[in-house]
Amino acid sequence: MARRLATPRERVYSGAVTRIFDPAEIATAFRQEIRAEIAALGEPILLRGFLGTATGSTAAADRGPSHTYAEYTRKGCDDVGVKFDLVEVPRLEIERAIEAANADTGVHGILVYYPVFGTEQDAYLRELVDAGKDIEGLHRFWARCLYENRRFLDAAKTKKAILPCTPLAVLKLLDAAGATDPTAPRPLAGKRAVVFNRSEVVGRPLAAMLANDGAHVTSFDIDGALELVPGESDAGHLIRETRETRASALAGADIVVTGVPSKTFPKVTGDEIREGAYCVNFSTQKNFDDSILGKAKIFIPRVGPMTVTMALRNTVRLYLNATTRA
Amino acid sequence: MARRLATPRERVYSGAVTRIFDPAEIATAFRQEIRAEIAALGEPILLRGFLGTATGSTAAADRGPSHTYAEYTRKGCDDVGVKFDLVEVPRLEIERAIEAANADTGVHGILVYYPVFGTEQDAYLRELVDAGKDIEGLHRFWARCLYENRRFLDAAKTKKAILPCTPLAVLKLLDAAGATDPTAPRPLAGKRAVVFNRSEVVGRPLAAMLANDGAHVTSFDIDGALELVPGESDAGHLIRETRETRASALAGADIVVTGVPSKTFPKVTGDEIREGAYCVNFSTQKNFDDSILGKAKIFIPRVGPMTVTMALRNTVRLYLNATTRA
Repeated sequence: MARRLATPRERVYSGAVTRIFDPAEIATAFRQEIRAEIAALGEPILLRGFLGTATGSTAAADRGPSHTYAEYTRKGCDDVGVKFDLVEVPRLEIERAIEAANADTGVHGILVYYPVFGTEQDAYLRELVDAGKDIEGLHRFWARCLYENRRFLDAAKTKKAILPCTPLAVLKLLDAAGATDPTAPRPLAGKRAVVFNRSEVVGRPLAAMLANDGAHVTSFDIDGALELVPGESDAGHLIRETRETRASALAGADIVVTGVPSKTFPKVTGDEIREGAYCVNFSTQKNFDDSILGKAKIFIPRVGPMTVTMALRNTVRLYLNATTRA
Repeated sequence: MARRLATPRERVYSGAVTRIFDPAEIATAFRQEIRAEIAALGEPILLRGFLGTATGSTAAADRGPSHTYAEYTRKGCDDVGVKFDLVEVPRLEIERAIEAANADTGVHGILVYYPVFGTEQDAYLRELVDAGKDIEGLHRFWARCLYENRRFLDAAKTKKAILPCTPLAVLKLLDAAGATDPTAPRPLAGKRAVVFNRSEVVGRPLAAMLANDGAHVTSFDIDGALELVPGESDAGHLIRETRETRASALAGADIVVTGVPSKTFPKVTGDEIREGAYCVNFSTQKNFDDSILGKAKIFIPRVGPMTVTMALRNTVRLYLNATTRA
């Protein structure tokens, strides 16, 4: 790569330039589209958000990050023209509040700010949200559509399955950064990717989406590695056992995505990655060492603004699914 | 309590006698009933069990406890006359195997031996099992029936909702030990209980069942305490925040149930519990200190044989639900 002057968004290391990508800039373009779609609808869309509050306990609710995320949602809603109704509810009343919102035809989308309990009980809440109003795409119904590569809900293909918003945000950012070939039938064909995190809500769906799009994915979590590869005849993906190590997987990866919410995770270093790799971190922790700068081609240090944007995109899609006659 | 000679099943401490209860003995009586019910059915019942195997990974599959549980299941099935088809499947093929069993009308019950992955992916598998074949009652559909106090699936009340088998086993053991008043509308009315563990698959359903039956329950987990109390007008239960501490809750408890799968959990001691308490441990770890002997009235150190028996009971119930015309 020729030496050139770095822009303020870039950092120069050992002669090569790593572009640090701001997801907010990409999000802006998507929001314009969403705003136009919403303006064309006949009625206002209402999104209801739930913040759980706890009293007399040490629970994980009442913390900062949820409120911050709720504020991002409000800004996003204002920006695209969705009416946002944020309610604070004692955590033990959230179940009933969700059921009421499920039943309320005036509520088009529901967003619960986790953690509410910070335990398995949060997973119970997640599944309680009507899948047809679950704008984050966290409900198991959507995961099952993704894993089974069902892209539409109806035979006439008028109602699209939605995708979980954080993995979708990562994919759209990789698109925008030029990591994919949008003209190819499988835009990540021939690419190798590594994902750290195989949670059911982010890491596994993300690995599945990358593999559905043609990538060979090595997925790491505390229980070891699995491999997700494109299925035969351009459909879906397969999951396989693998003996790949962190070192071998990273050395061959065109794309490295991290989402490990732990300070003890050994950060991915410049020595480990391939020259010109695309690096994305969606964890709230810093999972990449600064030494990747100068070796990676693109570094996307956070995904948040795109996640909110993808949730808004899902809101429109769910609204259309609910109102379109098949 | 008058001093008397302890039987071999009992241990004498400081003058009082704690009866140590063997769940296998209670299970025997239940199995006789189940055997008679099955003999009266027109066709044999088939239960399919899945043991996941892993290759080239450090996953939690391939471990001893699952095989032991599978052997218990086989013995239980032989005992009551259920056909048991245990299959070992590479863990990455379990999803498809479950879906095939869901679709197979010749399979009446499905039991997956966890852990398969030992991660959130196990929760995905749990929900993939058709609720109508989920003999352990682990599917969220059954949890929701329990939490909402829906005891029947149909308006005609011919199809009973099933209950998760470990909590059900604990309740039946408390019944057999004399902790309940089976003639009362709410057999645990006026009783106080403490449960350590609030997992969505055992601890929370157990606390809900105890409260539905009239008990005042303090439920502890790593995120603190909650209180589950009987609802008004004899229906269901309410969950509330509480400032109760371990010390105050244990000092007032007629029933203490532990299910903490950790060696670092401070064992419940004789000093902490009330004279004459009923103590039940369903964890694979020892959660009670020996000092409870001589102070507790009844100690049930394990639940396993009753859990298998309740799973068999659920198998019959699900078979009847599927074949009974409403």
